[in-house]
Amino acid sequence: MENREISQAVIGRLPRYFRYLGELKDEGVERISSQELSDIMQVTASQIRQDFNNFGGFGQQGYGYKVEYLYEEIGKILGLDRTHNLIIIGAGNLGQALANYMNFERRGFLFKGIFDKNPALWGRKIRNMEIKPMEEMEAFVREKGIDIAVLTIPKGSAVEVAEKLVANGIRGIWNFAHVDLPVPDKIQVENVHLSDSLMKLAYNINQYEHREH
Amino acid sequence: MENREISQAVIGRLPRYFRYLGELKDEGVERISSQELSDIMQVTASQIRQDFNNFGGFGQQGYGYKVEYLYEEIGKILGLDRTHNLIIIGAGNLGQALANYMNFERRGFLFKGIFDKNPALWGRKIRNMEIKPMEEMEAFVREKGIDIAVLTIPKGSAVEVAEKLVANGIRGIWNFAHVDLPVPDKIQVENVHLSDSLMKLAYNINQYEHREH
Repeated sequence: MENREISQAVIGRLPRYFRYLGELKDEGVERISSQELSDIMQVTASQIRQDFNNFGGFGQQGYGYKVEYLYEEIGKILGLDRTHNLIIIGAGNLGQALANYMNFERRGFLFKGIFDKNPALWGRKIRNMEIKPMEEMEAFVREKGIDIAVLTIPKGSAVEVAEKLVANGIRGIWNFAHVDLPVPDKIQVENVHLSDSLMKLAYNINQYEHREH
Repeated sequence: MENREISQAVIGRLPRYFRYLGELKDEGVERISSQELSDIMQVTASQIRQDFNNFGGFGQQGYGYKVEYLYEEIGKILGLDRTHNLIIIGAGNLGQALANYMNFERRGFLFKGIFDKNPALWGRKIRNMEIKPMEEMEAFVREKGIDIAVLTIPKGSAVEVAEKLVANGIRGIWNFAHVDLPVPDKIQVENVHLSDSLMKLAYNINQYEHREH
């Protein structure tokens, strides 16, 4: 269960399982078959069984899965049984939106600081964090044991900032800047390229209309 | 080139090609081989040729691709040669961040309105848009020919709002609410589940550490 290489496609589906199982747990559901889970999640039961087999299966054939157990095991696989320390680089609207999103904290993602290059913002508070100058970022990452940096800055400065973060021991970057970051393999990067996602939506709308007319 | 079914994986890669080609064009690069494109994009040259073959190939073997032509053709495939009318539902930090992001307009995504259920926000302006009450949303979608709705509201109300949008002729939903929307097949949905993305990052960080220690 620990060290095998699991495909990024499977890993990408785990948070969705985790979300649905959390909802079932909150509704008091104790057991669920792969078929029932398939119906509510709109994926095939065989896909579900195949995904779970990557992690040892979790279930007894015929009895279904124990919801709470499965929820906790997937949480452990996702590393949600430990906490992560985060900083946000860029205190614009998007940075503030992320800082204010309480659900991340519930999952163990703790925002420890927020940085911006704009002096007009320094000292202003978002939740309990004062916005700090970029010059303080590097020491902060080292001294507070920051794991993850959230980049919500323009693409022009993102690469340089990423290099500084890497040099100071960051482990992962959640990148909203519209550029692919050239970082060493040991640094994990998860990109959220919002424009790419919107363009994909536009493509699918246009294709649907082509097919219909 | 028009009506074949192209896999969502290929489509998901098109915006990234479009982005890189736009940058090359801005730098004055006229021609590029699949090998050169492969080097800067960190995907294999054979992947690039395979992806482009879905759309007729675009290039002359041995001469490389004409950057501007390729950029424009991919733009057309993505539907960026036409405009889309958007509204934002939810005028919180995330809704405001998206409304203020000018690059979407450059790609033909025109924000026409923003709606919120909070009366304290009604009448406040974001760029040139006044925040309007939710009650005005349905008529607005019909009357202004809105294609795409951006949902930045909590999951509790997202499903109900999506149903109203569908009933009033929306074609696509860019969904930031943390719930999967049950909509008819003719409605295109692109989900941006931010928590899922952050959890995937945490998984990859933890796995890397497992492997190393």
